[in-house]
Amino acid sequence: MFILILKMTTITNTADALQHPLRWGIVSAGLISNDFVIAMSTLNPSKHVAAAVAARSVNDAEKFAKEHDIPKFYGSYEELFQDPDIDVIYIGSIHPYHLPLAKQAMDAGKPVLCEKPLCMNSKETAELIAYAEEKKLFLMEAIWVRHFPVYRKLKELLDQGAVGDVKNLIISFGIPIGDKDSCKYPNLGGGSTLGIGIYCVQLALFVFGQQKPEVVSTGCLNKWGADENGSTTLKFSGGRLATFTTSYNTLMPNEAFIVGTTGTIKMHSPFLSTSTLELMPDGNVFEFALPVSSKSTILENSTGLSYQCLEVRRCINEGRLESPVMSHWESQLIADICESIRKQIGVVYPQD
Amino acid sequence: MFILILKMTTITNTADALQHPLRWGIVSAGLISNDFVIAMSTLNPSKHVAAAVAARSVNDAEKFAKEHDIPKFYGSYEELFQDPDIDVIYIGSIHPYHLPLAKQAMDAGKPVLCEKPLCMNSKETAELIAYAEEKKLFLMEAIWVRHFPVYRKLKELLDQGAVGDVKNLIISFGIPIGDKDSCKYPNLGGGSTLGIGIYCVQLALFVFGQQKPEVVSTGCLNKWGADENGSTTLKFSGGRLATFTTSYNTLMPNEAFIVGTTGTIKMHSPFLSTSTLELMPDGNVFEFALPVSSKSTILENSTGLSYQCLEVRRCINEGRLESPVMSHWESQLIADICESIRKQIGVVYPQD
Repeated sequence: MFILILKMTTITNTADALQHPLRWGIVSAGLISNDFVIAMSTLNPSKHVAAAVAARSVNDAEKFAKEHDIPKFYGSYEELFQDPDIDVIYIGSIHPYHLPLAKQAMDAGKPVLCEKPLCMNSKETAELIAYAEEKKLFLMEAIWVRHFPVYRKLKELLDQGAVGDVKNLIISFGIPIGDKDSCKYPNLGGGSTLGIGIYCVQLALFVFGQQKPEVVSTGCLNKWGADENGSTTLKFSGGRLATFTTSYNTLMPNEAFIVGTTGTIKMHSPFLSTSTLELMPDGNVFEFALPVSSKSTILENSTGLSYQCLEVRRCINEGRLESPVMSHWESQLIADICESIRKQIGVVYPQD
Repeated sequence: MFILILKMTTITNTADALQHPLRWGIVSAGLISNDFVIAMSTLNPSKHVAAAVAARSVNDAEKFAKEHDIPKFYGSYEELFQDPDIDVIYIGSIHPYHLPLAKQAMDAGKPVLCEKPLCMNSKETAELIAYAEEKKLFLMEAIWVRHFPVYRKLKELLDQGAVGDVKNLIISFGIPIGDKDSCKYPNLGGGSTLGIGIYCVQLALFVFGQQKPEVVSTGCLNKWGADENGSTTLKFSGGRLATFTTSYNTLMPNEAFIVGTTGTIKMHSPFLSTSTLELMPDGNVFEFALPVSSKSTILENSTGLSYQCLEVRRCINEGRLESPVMSHWESQLIADICESIRKQIGVVYPQD
């Protein structure tokens, strides 16, 4: 057994058309925005800066700006979108607001990195993607973990056939956060499928390739009608199954196993944002050190939120309107699968 | 963290009406009979003896008898059933033969311990149970692991609320034996649900109590129509889910996690016949040493096949016609659930 500690391998920069830092405008002063800004502070400030933040309450925006040394703050999102010194918008609000805010940002001519899930359902997702394509503006869903170096190593191992033919993906993902308003109320986008199951869906598509699987799911609703837990199997061609259990009321092992005919790749806990792959049965471990910040983040390993910033800059530099790492097509597929899952469990959102 | 090594705690013997060893007649000279007889040899020979073995080929029976020091062997099952010096029959043949052989044994007045699955489907199971009840003869399905001391410890932990309210059971169970005839051909009872999924079903019923769950399943057939893999969720009352993935083409982690609101009990690999429970997050480990034999078994930990012999003797001693540890009612429920699973996957047996 050997343990290989690998340094973060940055995305190879092609010609850098942007002659200045990418100036980010942050929508919402909540938890994920907090971690996003801390993550961004680990990047080269000549490439990325948090230039302004907006919240519904100007006090919240001001407090957030002071805490993170952000020069500007706004008490309305529209002011942020209209700011000519902002290059790109990061939307960190809860998901029911993603569609209206992303469209509003694009109306002001701004490219958008939008937290996951991109929207509340398939229909909204199609609408937003079509809007971005019509406006010819960059749009990416913030499936941040896709941009981790560990995912490139994973792809390399799969391509090499390191575990033979992959037949199963098995994931448990439970975190006891079901008491949070945004997790429990359907009108705030509550439910474990959209909140955390989406991470399992994206990993399944990464491992099994970009095809539409059959979806078989069941789960339980809380008293407000959001799914407090669920178990889903995605059936792909060639006898391949991805099975995952999500829960908002328990802490699970939070490990992922990619099982092939000759071995297994284990993604260590927290699989969601893991920095460690283990090749079994030989026991080789691949660790990818995450960026380090002096400030502590709320979510585990979330300094890795910065990797997607590199991808956004790369895409904008190259004049791309979507990222090949998380394409519009795949965001739509993720939305379709999540909708199928939650409909089988019985979740209905006001947006449906 | 502490590791507690516990000696096997034998079932408390009440008055022992049997004045002689229980004389076992072994049906079939295959793999599981081999391990069963080795397991029995770890018991007190004044309580249990393998007295005779029968196989379809007298040569196989003779070879088996010599290998295991069994005094008598037969080239037909009927001769074994008619032997007046046999007290109880163990049926170790493949499952399509369980119903006819068990009935034949009972016709000769013999109580039966029959390998799992008891029968091929719900209908056959009901028929066999009714037959035993009519004949007033003891019948038990050989869900051997239920009789392990580790299961009593598990029950104790669950009853104490050691992990709070149990919400999820998550199991992976894959062993690459799909090339064996008895695993791949439907007419031989092939398919991972009946072959190995049944262990997950019985654990789910043990953990969540004896109630009929909703069954949601999907999986893939091999080219002969047996299920080479499957993923199933059993939905119990109170928002509780048991999710398990079975596979005949890969080796899986083979661990079980019983996830509660305050912690998790991990059943170490091989969960099927585990001797080790780990209480998480505190890390306490409970190990139950298995009986030791000088002969090596084929299946892992299968000297534990002996525990069920103790239960059979106890039941016969007490004049019971079924065991409270694995009741007829529960065997029927297991059969019903397995039938529902395989029908959702699309497996059809000649017996259906």
